[in-house]
Parts: sequence; C-alpha cells; structure tokens
Amino acid sequence: MGMSTAPLTIYCNAAFPEPAMETLSAGLGNHQLLMPPLLQTSNLAAGGYDPLLANADVAFGQPDPKQVIETPRLKWVHLTTAGYTRYDTAELRSAMAARGGILTTSSQVYEEPCAEHVFSFMLALARQLPEMILEQKHERSNFRSWKQAHHRSNSRLLVGQSAMIYGYGTIARRLTELLAPFHMKLIGVRRKIAGDEGIMMVPTDQADAHLGQADHVINILPAAAGTDRYFNAERFMRMKQGSVFYNIGRGNTVDQVAMIAALKSGQVSAAYLDVTDPEPLPRDHPLWDAPNCWITPHTAGGHTDEFARLVKHFVANLDRYLLGEKLADRVI
Amino acid sequence: MGMSTAPLTIYCNAAFPEPAMETLSAGLGNHQLLMPPLLQTSNLAAGGYDPLLANADVAFGQPDPKQVIETPRLKWVHLTTAGYTRYDTAELRSAMAARGGILTTSSQVYEEPCAEHVFSFMLALARQLPEMILEQKHERSNFRSWKQAHHRSNSRLLVGQSAMIYGYGTIARRLTELLAPFHMKLIGVRRKIAGDEGIMMVPTDQADAHLGQADHVINILPAAAGTDRYFNAERFMRMKQGSVFYNIGRGNTVDQVAMIAALKSGQVSAAYLDVTDPEPLPRDHPLWDAPNCWITPHTAGGHTDEFARLVKHFVANLDRYLLGEKLADRVI
Repeated sequence: MGMSTAPLTIYCNAAFPEPAMETLSAGLGNHQLLMPPLLQTSNLAAGGYDPLLANADVAFGQPDPKQVIETPRLKWVHLTTAGYTRYDTAELRSAMAARGGILTTSSQVYEEPCAEHVFSFMLALARQLPEMILEQKHERSNFRSWKQAHHRSNSRLLVGQSAMIYGYGTIARRLTELLAPFHMKLIGVRRKIAGDEGIMMVPTDQADAHLGQADHVINILPAAAGTDRYFNAERFMRMKQGSVFYNIGRGNTVDQVAMIAALKSGQVSAAYLDVTDPEPLPRDHPLWDAPNCWITPHTAGGHTDEFARLVKHFVANLDRYLLGEKLADRVI
Repeated sequence: MGMSTAPLTIYCNAAFPEPAMETLSAGLGNHQLLMPPLLQTSNLAAGGYDPLLANADVAFGQPDPKQVIETPRLKWVHLTTAGYTRYDTAELRSAMAARGGILTTSSQVYEEPCAEHVFSFMLALARQLPEMILEQKHERSNFRSWKQAHHRSNSRLLVGQSAMIYGYGTIARRLTELLAPFHMKLIGVRRKIAGDEGIMMVPTDQADAHLGQADHVINILPAAAGTDRYFNAERFMRMKQGSVFYNIGRGNTVDQVAMIAALKSGQVSAAYLDVTDPEPLPRDHPLWDAPNCWITPHTAGGHTDEFARLVKHFVANLDRYLLGEKLADRVI
C-alpha cells in the first residue's frame, strides 16, 4: 500500500445527513467522492449493484458484496456497520487477498452505544424499572398503585453478581470496563482466547460447564458458523434458576421458542432483546407478550451523533490508509 | 464508653422478617432484646411512644424522638434509615450530648441501592427505555411500531457528558465511582466541602453559576434548613436547555409546579423522581402525566436483602460499640 499521492476515487453509498456530509467532504481533501444520486435518508444498512463502484479505489458504506469481488480496482472497503456477515465469504476473502485488498468495519463507533445500551437494561431490570414505568402509564398494570414495598423487596443490586458474556469482542471489553465498579464475577466466552481480555475467559466449547453460575447471560454472539440457535432449549435449562438473559448480537443465535418456554417456567426470570428473528418483529409475535420479556427495536448501536462518528471514523482510517499505517477495525 | 461487660438491654421496634430476625438474635450474644409484641411487617419507617424503651441502653429502629430525649439511660440510637430529620433537633442533640449519647444511621446500607437506582435511570433515559417499554406494552403509545430510526437517533451516550450532584454525601460518592468509566465532567455541591471528594466541588451558595453547564442535574439534597423548594422556577430556568433532572433526595426540595413548567417548555427534557411531595402521590396528581416525567414510588433504597443488610450493619456497629471503637454512620 504505502504512501499514496495521486487522488483516490472514493465511492460512498451511505446517505448521511447534511452536517456529517460536510465533515466527509472536508475530510476527503483532494480525493474524489462518488455518490449515487438517489440515496434514501439514513440508508446505512444495505446497498445494491451500482455502476459507479466500478470507478472506485475505496468504498465507504455498504457496497454490493458480489460487485466488490468483481471490481479488482477496489482496494479498500470500509463498512458503516460493525457486522460484516455478507462480506465474510471465502470468495470475497480470496478476491481481496489476490489484490492486496482490505475490509474494515465501523466497530469502534458502536462499542460505546452497544455497551451502554445492554448495561442500561441490566440496571433497569435489576431496579424493576419496566414494571414501574408501566404502572405509571399503563392502565391495565396496577395503574399508579404505589407498590412501594413490593418493588423495594424485588429490586436487586448488581454489585457482586455474576455474568457470562458470549462473543467477547470490543463491545464486551467496553461493557467490562463499565461494570468494573460493580465488582461482578465475569466470565468471557469466545472461540479463540487472545489472553489479553482482562477477565476470566473460557473457549466456546467449554462454556456450558460455567453457564449455571451466571446471574446474567449476555449474548453478543455474531452471525457466524456455529452460532445459529446457539442458545437452545438445553442451554436455557443449564442456566441458573432465575437468571436474566440479554441479546444484543443477532436474533438467529437464539431459539426463541425455547427462550419463551424458559421465561414461562421461571428458569429465566427476565429477558432483554435488542435483536429478534425476524426484524421488525410482527405485532402478533409471541415474544412481545412473553413474561418479563423486554424488546427494543435494534437500537443498541444508535446515538444522536452516530452519523458524525461514522464519518470521523472513516476519515481517520483514510488518513492512516494514505500514510500506510495500520487501519482500525480491519477484518480482512 | 469503653469496653462493656454487663449485658445491655437493646430495644428494637423494626419488624424484620424471620431470616433477618435470626441474624439479629445471633448477633446480640448475651445482650437482651426488647421488642414490642405487635409490630407490623416491614414497619421500618416510624415508631411511636413505647414504655419498653424506658428500660433500654440501646435502641435499633425508629424510636420516638421525644421519648429518646426523655430517656437518659438510652446511650445509643441506631436508625434503620439513612435520613434522620426527625432526630436532627437542637433538643435531641443537647439531650444526647448531656448523656454522652450517640446517634447512628443505616446510611451505608442505602448507598449502593440508591446509587444504582439513580444510575439506572440516567442510562434508561439516555437509551430511550421508558418510551420503548411503553411502545411494547401500552396500546396508546405507538404500539409495537418498531420506531427504530427514531429511537436510534434520539438515544444518547453518557460518555463525556456533564453532571452536577447536589448533596454530595455517601450516595453521591458511590455514584461517582459507578460513573467513573464514563469519563463525565462531574461537579459536586455541598454546604461544607471536605476536600477529599475526589471531584470538582462547589459550595451550595456558589452552585448557581455552574448549573447551566450540566447535562444531568442530580438532586440528593437532604431535608434540612435551606433545602425546602431549593429547585425553584429560577433554578430550573438556569439549567441547560434539554438537561435531565433527577431527585432521589426528598420530595420537598423541589418546586414541583416549576418543574412541570420546565418539562412542558422543554427547558428540562426529562425528569426522574423517586421522591415526591406528597407520598404516595395521588392518582390524579399532575406529576404522573407531566411530559417525560418518570416516577418510582420511593424504591431507590430497596433491595432483596435490605433487611439482612440492615441487621448486619447494626450488629457490626454493636461490636464496635462494645469494643469502644468508632461507629459507622455516626451523625450525633
């Protein structure tokens, strides 16, 4: 790669709002920006075949994976998401390897919001907030009944509790930092343990032996080989009686029927899901009314300055790219 | 005081459930326990005149303040609450001073739950949880409408935000520990600054000059001289546009009419109240329906093992008392 001098052609198919677009233009310097003319606002999630991409050295957004493979000129793709399942194929890896190409993600942009989001639900459930919010506003739920003694005696403390974190990547590392003042017993789970995680780690194939100890089971598993319906009926039965289950990874890593059964039996005392299968979840889906099951519509990564931070992250990586430095969030 | 050898008579008018009572009995050793025969379950909050108290060396619970003054034999009162407003009178202070008496509270028992509770609402409001919980369950609130883009763009990050904490005592210190990983700009406010608070502190009479900088205004003011309606219309107007206001101190420290006006104008974007004036809050009180105003029924201090921890805290203090050591949570 090395120091680049000639202007690059940078394709972008993410529809950023105006302030973020200005930051992007300013950050590109004399490099050329190519954008399809009819982008929908906030269309960060997908992109199809686009003839413009054929002229690009760099792509920022969600370029069509098949077209990425077919465009040898394209040396670097920077995704606007933390996930990269669509790009994680043998064919794309080998095509990128052949041209010395790079794939990076926006993982660092989403560490903080995702960690804060799942943490907010850990505390909310411990402190009985969903029930009390409904009692304040929902006429069918003990409307304004001031159930003080009930909620006081059911409120829990996070301090000193135990948690297992499945999918111990960058979100989990940040969550571990946020949980530090609570002196929890944490166990991280991942396929390949790096050794620098800073908490007790177990490989995925040995995790079952520890599952029964955790007050909180936090699922950040990616969509990958072996994770489909990973949390199945058997694993819900292995969980500690009354434990709480969280999913901010991918909806398909959970057997939702088994989870609902675990909630109904009390094996799992509460569940919090930011991801479901499918999304959006149909209005009549049984998850909505499963006991003590709380759902947010895949908002964990969202934050007011999401677009600005996505652009800044790309521009910082572009500066590194031009200087031949190591890129942040490189996955291929 | 010094080492005591003769058995003490210990009066208790707190109605603990059975496991906590057993812990208390075991912790008392050969000292004598006096309890009124007809205690109501979970009656920790108040107690009236009781002839039994006349024979007590120590009182644990909520003894009648007038009777404490009139009982010279009583050398140590340990309250089951963190607050001690009813006991904080010149007459009681002078009566205790005359007999070398001590008043202690259960402040340490409530630091953790109160800090976790207000923190849970800081995160819940930042992450839009109340709205999404209502959308899931409350038919009138965009029922299951999967407003993903809306909530993503309105979700905020706590990291890097600013907060002022009024009433910088033990709860605030613990909250500061919990907030440490968020690298927030914190300013503490108290009448007398000790110098060991570990964050920027301003005295109460200089706090107004800083109020306009805070994204979060956290009120833990006690019921004391000068705090009645401290947060009045003028101070709500001084707050930063869109700031969030929290009260886990005492309901009477807030001018609720002024707060509702600030919520309606958007000056304050959200309020979270664990305490109100009066309590319980009547069903038709305007606070319940003030915009973005969230209420829990004075549950911040509650936790599953509250009674056990109250008893353990007293027994630990009793051991210190018998050894002539410094007592925890001494206020007189």
